[in-house]
Amino acid sequence: MNITDRTKVKRIPKRGHYDLETIYSILDDEFVCHIGFVHHGSPVVIPTLYGRKDNYLLIHGASTSRMLGELNKELDICLTVTLTDGLVLARSGFHHSANYRSVVVFGKAQLIEDKAEKEAALKAVSDHIIAGRWEEVRPTKDNELKATHVFKIPIDEASAKIRTGGPADDKEDYELDIWAGVVPIKKVYQTPIPDPLNKEGVEMSESVKRFVEVNKNF
Amino acid sequence: MNITDRTKVKRIPKRGHYDLETIYSILDDEFVCHIGFVHHGSPVVIPTLYGRKDNYLLIHGASTSRMLGELNKELDICLTVTLTDGLVLARSGFHHSANYRSVVVFGKAQLIEDKAEKEAALKAVSDHIIAGRWEEVRPTKDNELKATHVFKIPIDEASAKIRTGGPADDKEDYELDIWAGVVPIKKVYQTPIPDPLNKEGVEMSESVKRFVEVNKNF
Repeated sequence: MNITDRTKVKRIPKRGHYDLETIYSILDDEFVCHIGFVHHGSPVVIPTLYGRKDNYLLIHGASTSRMLGELNKELDICLTVTLTDGLVLARSGFHHSANYRSVVVFGKAQLIEDKAEKEAALKAVSDHIIAGRWEEVRPTKDNELKATHVFKIPIDEASAKIRTGGPADDKEDYELDIWAGVVPIKKVYQTPIPDPLNKEGVEMSESVKRFVEVNKNF
Repeated sequence: MNITDRTKVKRIPKRGHYDLETIYSILDDEFVCHIGFVHHGSPVVIPTLYGRKDNYLLIHGASTSRMLGELNKELDICLTVTLTDGLVLARSGFHHSANYRSVVVFGKAQLIEDKAEKEAALKAVSDHIIAGRWEEVRPTKDNELKATHVFKIPIDEASAKIRTGGPADDKEDYELDIWAGVVPIKKVYQTPIPDPLNKEGVEMSESVKRFVEVNKNF
């Protein structure tokens, strides 16, 4: 990945990463991003779901959505994904920190107009979140496709920033009788709650069973 | 809270909330925000820690940070906080959704110059994340205060957006033999990991013990 003025990690450069493997691994560990764009001169930051397929991020929404209307103007956007992995508790307030993995992608969102590509992109978003769910549900209707805008954003100008490990205190502070350490944070999926309107006898589908199995964090 | 063109929830208006109680409760449930600002005409979205005290959001960082340098120019910013509470699995791909609580705050970041106010703001950020930790650690030094910029952002132009509950499918799809439901998501704090460099005999401090007790999610 080329490093640009926008993606170069300037504060604590050792936390910066520019290889696609690292960038993809963070993007694949989350499905909510924050998209920033400029509207009437003001910055706007909106959370939305995303998927990744190859070197593209994919986002979708109602074609009537204000954000997607703005993205369609070929504006510059900034798409940021952040995973918080821990609270870092040091011996001084100053050295308290957080462990995190984040990715920032700059680019322009490209509206997907081709019907087959659009459906494939929607499937990719679905697969990114719960693999196999797409095949289990009722097929998409033409009017639903029309009511949905899907955009792809190339991962061409991006960087990751990562902090791991314990506190880094001032040398003399290690002599203090202050407990220091890390409180790990995990995103946990809990036991799925069936819709009370599920038809009698309908069991949890395979994709959801697999998802629960894979994501058991405790 | 006055509703402005920037804060009005236009897509699915029933999900919009403008009362301070709702806005505060979401802000108090998280400590990572995404700040958007315009830099050389491009939007930039950066994750950072925050605290809330009364009607202000407080953020801090190294005085050499690019983001804080930009914020100090009295630019418009957009600060967004998002909690993802669940995956909503419907009978069609189209009606899949997520349960979430988000807050968007528009405003300008105000640099806190007064030393006492600055220290109080840093304590407020610390208290927002782990109450009581501030009193346990080594006091802040003057050079640390100088190396840190702290900004307050009034919560004067803000809105919340919330989705809860199960899937909302098309009437005829309830007849399908497709499992639908919600996969709840929780942020979980795990057992704290002591710094191997803690002095022998130093026990976990009270603030961390209380934090673990309060945040036991499973």
